[in-house]
Amino acid sequence: MYIQTKKENKIGGYIMGSKLRFGVIGLGKIGRVHLESLVNYINQAHVVHVADPYISDDLINWLQDNGIENISKDPIDILENKNVDAVMICSPTNMHAEQIIAAAKAGKHIFCEKPVDYDLNKIVEALDVVQRAGVKFQIGFNRRFDHNFKRIHNEVASGSIGNVQIVKITSRDPAPPSISYVKSSGGLFMDMMIHDFDMIRYISGKKVEMVYAQGSVLIEEEIGKVGDVDTAVVTIGFDDGAFGIIDNSRKAIYGYDQRAEVFGSLGCCMTDNDTATRVSLMTDKGAISDKPPYFFLERYFFAYVEEIKEFANSIIKKSPTKCGMYDAIMPVIMAKAAKLSLEQKKPITIKEILKNENINIDKYN
Amino acid sequence: MYIQTKKENKIGGYIMGSKLRFGVIGLGKIGRVHLESLVNYINQAHVVHVADPYISDDLINWLQDNGIENISKDPIDILENKNVDAVMICSPTNMHAEQIIAAAKAGKHIFCEKPVDYDLNKIVEALDVVQRAGVKFQIGFNRRFDHNFKRIHNEVASGSIGNVQIVKITSRDPAPPSISYVKSSGGLFMDMMIHDFDMIRYISGKKVEMVYAQGSVLIEEEIGKVGDVDTAVVTIGFDDGAFGIIDNSRKAIYGYDQRAEVFGSLGCCMTDNDTATRVSLMTDKGAISDKPPYFFLERYFFAYVEEIKEFANSIIKKSPTKCGMYDAIMPVIMAKAAKLSLEQKKPITIKEILKNENINIDKYN
Amino acid sequence: MYIQTKKENKIGGYIMGSKLRFGVIGLGKIGRVHLESLVNYINQAHVVHVADPYISDDLINWLQDNGIENISKDPIDILENKNVDAVMICSPTNMHAEQIIAAAKAGKHIFCEKPVDYDLNKIVEALDVVQRAGVKFQIGFNRRFDHNFKRIHNEVASGSIGNVQIVKITSRDPAPPSISYVKSSGGLFMDMMIHDFDMIRYISGKKVEMVYAQGSVLIEEEIGKVGDVDTAVVTIGFDDGAFGIIDNSRKAIYGYDQRAEVFGSLGCCMTDNDTATRVSLMTDKGAISDKPPYFFLERYFFAYVEEIKEFANSIIKKSPTKCGMYDAIMPVIMAKAAKLSLEQKKPITIKEILKNENINIDKYN
Amino acid sequence: MYIQTKKENKIGGYIMGSKLRFGVIGLGKIGRVHLESLVNYINQAHVVHVADPYISDDLINWLQDNGIENISKDPIDILENKNVDAVMICSPTNMHAEQIIAAAKAGKHIFCEKPVDYDLNKIVEALDVVQRAGVKFQIGFNRRFDHNFKRIHNEVASGSIGNVQIVKITSRDPAPPSISYVKSSGGLFMDMMIHDFDMIRYISGKKVEMVYAQGSVLIEEEIGKVGDVDTAVVTIGFDDGAFGIIDNSRKAIYGYDQRAEVFGSLGCCMTDNDTATRVSLMTDKGAISDKPPYFFLERYFFAYVEEIKEFANSIIKKSPTKCGMYDAIMPVIMAKAAKLSLEQKKPITIKEILKNENINIDKYN
Repeated sequence: MYIQTKKENKIGGYIMGSKLRFGVIGLGKIGRVHLESLVNYINQAHVVHVADPYISDDLINWLQDNGIENISKDPIDILENKNVDAVMICSPTNMHAEQIIAAAKAGKHIFCEKPVDYDLNKIVEALDVVQRAGVKFQIGFNRRFDHNFKRIHNEVASGSIGNVQIVKITSRDPAPPSISYVKSSGGLFMDMMIHDFDMIRYISGKKVEMVYAQGSVLIEEEIGKVGDVDTAVVTIGFDDGAFGIIDNSRKAIYGYDQRAEVFGSLGCCMTDNDTATRVSLMTDKGAISDKPPYFFLERYFFAYVEEIKEFANSIIKKSPTKCGMYDAIMPVIMAKAAKLSLEQKKPITIKEILKNENINIDKYN
Repeated sequence: MYIQTKKENKIGGYIMGSKLRFGVIGLGKIGRVHLESLVNYINQAHVVHVADPYISDDLINWLQDNGIENISKDPIDILENKNVDAVMICSPTNMHAEQIIAAAKAGKHIFCEKPVDYDLNKIVEALDVVQRAGVKFQIGFNRRFDHNFKRIHNEVASGSIGNVQIVKITSRDPAPPSISYVKSSGGLFMDMMIHDFDMIRYISGKKVEMVYAQGSVLIEEEIGKVGDVDTAVVTIGFDDGAFGIIDNSRKAIYGYDQRAEVFGSLGCCMTDNDTATRVSLMTDKGAISDKPPYFFLERYFFAYVEEIKEFANSIIKKSPTKCGMYDAIMPVIMAKAAKLSLEQKKPITIKEILKNENINIDKYN
Repeated sequence: MYIQTKKENKIGGYIMGSKLRFGVIGLGKIGRVHLESLVNYINQAHVVHVADPYISDDLINWLQDNGIENISKDPIDILENKNVDAVMICSPTNMHAEQIIAAAKAGKHIFCEKPVDYDLNKIVEALDVVQRAGVKFQIGFNRRFDHNFKRIHNEVASGSIGNVQIVKITSRDPAPPSISYVKSSGGLFMDMMIHDFDMIRYISGKKVEMVYAQGSVLIEEEIGKVGDVDTAVVTIGFDDGAFGIIDNSRKAIYGYDQRAEVFGSLGCCMTDNDTATRVSLMTDKGAISDKPPYFFLERYFFAYVEEIKEFANSIIKKSPTKCGMYDAIMPVIMAKAAKLSLEQKKPITIKEILKNENINIDKYN
Repeated sequence: MYIQTKKENKIGGYIMGSKLRFGVIGLGKIGRVHLESLVNYINQAHVVHVADPYISDDLINWLQDNGIENISKDPIDILENKNVDAVMICSPTNMHAEQIIAAAKAGKHIFCEKPVDYDLNKIVEALDVVQRAGVKFQIGFNRRFDHNFKRIHNEVASGSIGNVQIVKITSRDPAPPSISYVKSSGGLFMDMMIHDFDMIRYISGKKVEMVYAQGSVLIEEEIGKVGDVDTAVVTIGFDDGAFGIIDNSRKAIYGYDQRAEVFGSLGCCMTDNDTATRVSLMTDKGAISDKPPYFFLERYFFAYVEEIKEFANSIIKKSPTKCGMYDAIMPVIMAKAAKLSLEQKKPITIKEILKNENINIDKYN
């Protein structure tokens, strides 16, 4: 991608008066990424309040240096702050639903990190409150805002490849997470492939009907011992007969491998990985060029910036968010279906999950 | 690929005395491809006898001009010709098994076009005769001999990508065949994906355990009316927990799309399509380079040449053929499993097929 | 390139106490680029004073919003400000030499936009003052800090391509500048190819001995009428017998084309252009991928950031700047040689220019 | 490139009656390449007579096996053979002119390996006889018939890149020739860059006005000792103000590097090298793909085939050859200019060479 700077927004385009006032709940890893985006890259917003039970002195200094005066331990302070227009929920997953509900009741617009919850009924409960409150809601599937994937989405949406027939997503991490993370994350389908479940909906523009999952422990035995898989292939049936394929690995030795391909009646659109440079070196060994980045922020930092920009735009322009309630629940349903499919060694329909869980999601669409 | 010429064999390497003597049975499309290879590119062989019920005068002239004097309508003539060492069976599929049996009994080495038959028991019957006769047998999965796929196979076999975990094959035709062909071909899994069933075994070096097939009619309604699909995705479980993915389409508007990717513990090896040139044109519209070839012979002609060279080498060196009896039957079993999987909407194991058909194939390995 | 963010510097790495205090002289186009870099991306620095005779109210608001309180019309104010450690000279070229001299005498470290001057004697005069003052001096050849070119430089410097034999640079603008700019810019060799004169020194690591220039008016007649060319090819002789080739065009319809290739005894290292995405689209028309960016800031924004980071580092670490006095004067000498070569239709040596101008530059090395 | 086979010509298209009858003079390396092309790939021709003072028994066997009965030591035999329509002159360069004259007088169409001679007056003498005789004449600049370069030529000729402004050719050999070859070859400009002198005319479609050459001994000292250079850069001025750049090296460690780029008002067309496969391997070391071929026949074999096909077509269709008399002499003039430029360290015009040598070449155009 090229650069993405604040220049067009800031210099000569000073709009301080109309800035949205953000509160950030949770300042762990992803919370800090969003905080940095908000402070440095999002001209429509400024951060007026943050909350986290544990904040280092260094971070307090940084916050103050950046003009953020309200620093709380308890997120309730943010929700009670009349000067806060919107909240970023970046707390641990098990607190999301409750905080969404509280925020919605307080009339704050909500950006929530994915997933809302692992429990579909808790998601439904939270979304219902949001819907009644009429606040904006966006779920943090940041990859939709990546320059490459957005471009594929746009090509498909423009019709340039015709009727979509096959969608393929490759998503491989550079190294497995810690076992303690695996134990609490909900497993590969819920913590990793959930991005691809969203992506396949995003770039296909289609309705998922069926999921068939295969999974194995090929990388790290310990992952198997705690009941998860580290390598998985999922095929998806869309309701119009088109197909999706997702492959995930917890460990690609060459880096963070994030590609997609959409094949349709008029052509095929695909994205390769970003690389650090466009340099190649030709020697007697061959032609060597860059492998993909190792770190997810190298690939997706500006996607994080972009998703908040779009969230702010939805609030300002009173338009629907680019990744809303239906998008929040559907990938969790797909992950549930994938887990069940793996257990039962057969394809599982979305209908089965909805029926099992006795939930209705059409209202979010 | 670069060029592949006869110079090294012919000029200054004249070995007429030791040439294998070939008979060619069937001079349809594929028979003529093999005939041309034998006459023009295979130095170890010369064609001494051909048979086909219908041969035009033009072709007779061409045959004579190329020193092929024995031209029969009935393939029996070839089998009775003491001067024939090996036969190429290029007749319609329903005649393969019977001709294999006759050729084996006549002590001829056998190269047979794929598939041997759609009926597993007929295949077993034929292979058993071959095995008893002790003649060389090669089945015509030409893509194994393509420069790109052979290179992937070699990288995997060399261990350069470590333990194989995920294998992906994309195989899309430029345009659907005629409906009359679809009716008699055994369907997409048997006439088209059968190549990929072989390829996934070839490049993975693994044993297939399970097949799950999805298929739709997305391109041409008529294909659905005669009971086939035109778009299909198959996932494969190997016996060590690794995965395979194959996607097929009867119609890629941009040409004959033949790619593969193997992901393993030490890296990822992939091949793009061949293209007519390496030229790119950069204009205000973007950077435009060549699409893949449209015609299968543009991609695979030299793979056809190479497979016969290797067949001839196996005979001369008394070594196993590169694509033998087990390779002849296994893709047919996989195609059967895929068809059953599509019907029953669930994964099917190879064991189930073997049990259903009451056949044993280990003896061919 | 991947992203380049402030996070590692700022969050959890708060170093306000030790920040360098910058003054920025001139807030035209390039001045604002540097100002934005300093404010948003350079953690080691903060801007304490700016000067420009013409500053809009919007810009004043922006400056104040970013904590920049000292805003002058006259740059003298900056030089007299005891709290300024370093100045960025971004005024029109004809003021550079004089401001460098004043800043050096005031003991300020100096970053000056290229070129110092078109008059070699004025450059020498300014550099001599800098040298006596002992302040840091960096000239703004930003492309040295581009991720792609820096990587080529590093490969060459590491010896991975062996002895450099041929260096090729392609540098083409998307559209010609205005005629008024061409009239005052010193012409193509001085305003455009000067970057490539620096680049060829940077990536080759070699000493230029000779320049031969060809130039034509192929794009815009008006450019010829004011005495300049719009298309030029320059070949360079290095003192060890290696060669350099530069081609420049004022108008590449497909965008800002910035590539380089270095060929040596052990290999060849080359960079392609950056592109907005890694997406390609394959249709019946061919395979289409992105053309290069159109705007120089899309390609080089982070190179501008990086050059100031490195300048700040040189001050903090008391190390030589990465693009110093010798680098400031040498490309101007090469541009002079190129202009003379074009006039006289023959190769011109650097020695001839030095002799004609009666200057000695070895002292700056 | 894809494959190039005889099938369309031969099978079902038997045209023996109308075949051209070729004689081949000289059966060294290049003579055998052409012989193989003629025998195996050129359907419009058959070889009826060959001549070489030294022919091995193996080769005699091969010739007879391929139906070539007339084998002489003296080329006169071929010229006196009434059944020969056209001759391929593949003898040592110093015999070309004399044999061209004899062949033209005997009324044979002539294909001559490049160059006709190193002496411009001998070339003129030979071409004048050809012109008077009215036989077809083609010079062996085979690269014009390479799939990649032909495509660039066609793009330029079609106008798709607009007015050509800059043409760049990179041509590097994998390893230097023997010193004995260098001594007698006429040197780098005459034996190696002569191809590029032709290529730059072919792909630009322009008239060369001026040549400026730089050359060094950077690879092998011995080459310098016998008076030649091993690395050279030549810039060319076309008569409309456009530019050409050629770089040559006797040794590219990574193989036979053959690329070109044409930049024009509407775009830029370039070709990369061919490679053996389209496979890439991504490991923790980077992404590795194939380097270019090492051997010139890997890149150009089918260009050799194609040039003879086109020669045969010119005879059959009575159309001008694709690389005729003017093309035969012009690159030799450019090589002379380059040598003189290197000696005199200044640009040399084509006019100067023509004047010095007192020759007129317009008549060949």
